[in-house]
Amino acid sequence: MKAQILRFRSEDLERYVERFLNKLGVPLDDARLSAKVLVAADLRGVSSHGIIRLQTYYGRRIRDGLIDPLTPIIPVYETSATATLDAGNGLGMVAASRAMERCIRMAKNSNVAVVTVRNSNHYGIAGYYAMMALQESQIGISLTNAQPLVAPTYGRTAMLGTNPIAVAVPSASVLPFVLDMATSIVPIGKVTLHEKTGEPVPLGWGMDARGTLTNDPAAILKGGALSPLGGSDILRGYKGYDLAVVVDILSGILSGSGFGVSAGANDQPARIGHFFMVINIGAFRPLDEFKRDMATLMDELKNAPKAEGQERIYLAGEKEFEMAAENRIKGIPFLGAVIKELDQAGREMGVPFDLKPVAVS
Amino acid sequence: MKAQILRFRSEDLERYVERFLNKLGVPLDDARLSAKVLVAADLRGVSSHGIIRLQTYYGRRIRDGLIDPLTPIIPVYETSATATLDAGNGLGMVAASRAMERCIRMAKNSNVAVVTVRNSNHYGIAGYYAMMALQESQIGISLTNAQPLVAPTYGRTAMLGTNPIAVAVPSASVLPFVLDMATSIVPIGKVTLHEKTGEPVPLGWGMDARGTLTNDPAAILKGGALSPLGGSDILRGYKGYDLAVVVDILSGILSGSGFGVSAGANDQPARIGHFFMVINIGAFRPLDEFKRDMATLMDELKNAPKAEGQERIYLAGEKEFEMAAENRIKGIPFLGAVIKELDQAGREMGVPFDLKPVAVS
Repeated sequence: MKAQILRFRSEDLERYVERFLNKLGVPLDDARLSAKVLVAADLRGVSSHGIIRLQTYYGRRIRDGLIDPLTPIIPVYETSATATLDAGNGLGMVAASRAMERCIRMAKNSNVAVVTVRNSNHYGIAGYYAMMALQESQIGISLTNAQPLVAPTYGRTAMLGTNPIAVAVPSASVLPFVLDMATSIVPIGKVTLHEKTGEPVPLGWGMDARGTLTNDPAAILKGGALSPLGGSDILRGYKGYDLAVVVDILSGILSGSGFGVSAGANDQPARIGHFFMVINIGAFRPLDEFKRDMATLMDELKNAPKAEGQERIYLAGEKEFEMAAENRIKGIPFLGAVIKELDQAGREMGVPFDLKPVAVS
Repeated sequence: MKAQILRFRSEDLERYVERFLNKLGVPLDDARLSAKVLVAADLRGVSSHGIIRLQTYYGRRIRDGLIDPLTPIIPVYETSATATLDAGNGLGMVAASRAMERCIRMAKNSNVAVVTVRNSNHYGIAGYYAMMALQESQIGISLTNAQPLVAPTYGRTAMLGTNPIAVAVPSASVLPFVLDMATSIVPIGKVTLHEKTGEPVPLGWGMDARGTLTNDPAAILKGGALSPLGGSDILRGYKGYDLAVVVDILSGILSGSGFGVSAGANDQPARIGHFFMVINIGAFRPLDEFKRDMATLMDELKNAPKAEGQERIYLAGEKEFEMAAENRIKGIPFLGAVIKELDQAGREMGVPFDLKPVAVS
């Protein structure tokens, strides 16, 4: 039997998330910012970071007092090109949106700007904030640490988050360049999905509690850990491990937030840290020349000779843009079971999930 | 029969490189800077980027008019926190050293600074410049593009350089954190070495001319390409590919230099671009707190439980620091054959390699 798929309009979903968070005490403006980020993930096909977390992560943690519904954003240190902001254990999406807005504004004058955020929470997809810089034709960079899930090379215990790197770059081509990648091989959600369907995972994605690579998703989830990008030492997995440390340093340590095993605790404030950076292209060379060269590079990569059996070379972000375009027309697809869970959580909070699907299949 | 190993003092090697480059028309100060960078590579055990290239790359290209012995460093665009410098097709080591010096100086006032360099050449090890920032207790970042050797995911032709990422971070621990990694799995030198010894390479390092992963080093070198970090699509090799593109964008395109297949040509000026960034830690939080947290993170990683059969977890740069300490005492080791080649090249240039080894084995 095929699982039921329901499709919803992104605008409707945003309104629902707003109402849900507002009911939990999140001010309407902040709820709106958060809704935009969460639904953007679903729109782009990154459902692991979308409204599936609305109750299981954000709702639950606000109710349990682990996330503050208010996000004060207090500048702790500030210069014309840098800032450290304290998010007061508020919503990561709110803190990150505001921090990136500030970074974009600062970079207009200083030409390069860095803003770090301390005492924050999970901020959704890293790429959302990097992409904010595209509106001003700037280069945007967004990093965050997260709860420990990844083992260092030759280790066997989760010591680092899947610490993502997101970079958005304007281009004269149809699409900008938007990289948004975890520094682990896969996010934990991929392993969970395999466990649910009973399928083995490819060897390399993760290790068991002894630190041995395994095909068994349950062994990775129960006392094991994810592998850093690169995987085994022979394929230079230490580079993924080191990149995860760099992200932890810039997001967690530079901001004065949690880091390593002290970031992203389940049962206390997460103390997540973020790092944002914006580069004003015009300070380095004329913007139109830069965008033209970007389009050339992207064209050359796309049109490069393909490996035998392959038909297409992808550019960073291309799949996500295509998915978003499709979902904007057809509606964003969700499994019936996910909608049922949302509805149940919504009822408990007094905000039943009453949206009408635009399609059911 | 065991190959002969000769060891030389790093100071002696630096003096020799200075004389060699000076003879080719490189001003003494510039020759000194270049010697420091090249010998630092040998000292740290990264012999592929050391004086083995003195004749085969730098000497040959200066003689053939492909590298200018003078390195003018002309500011093309400049603000208080950013600059684009033109290296006038001079020596990469000179341009990069001067650019990073400038970046460090600027960041003292602006707290974050970015300097890009266009029309440069191979600059040796990326980590050297990142580490320059450590002297001022700043975070240093160094990126460069390079000649095409890496294929994009699903491609089969070299379109991107091994485009390294280097990040140096001060710490209250004995050693700083120093990442210096190519965004390919291995540098081309590793494959060449396997070809010479007739050993197959691990599956994943590179592909043949059809784009199929191969164990045969000759097939990778003859019309094939290196794999990006991550390797196959199932292990998310597109992340290494995308990181290589990010490095190309920031080094090649932002600086207005060559990029993609137009960087690093063998038979014409290489038009290599570099990117340097410096962060003043004190603008984000007190430096001593930052360094203390760095030491904590590094300690925690080092002391994390080991995978079965493993005894040690490494930190970025640790192996290289240990190697340098050993080589400073014992002398830097070279194969007899390499010294023979150096001597022959030196004689041709009128600068015979007349150094006395401190040990021969």
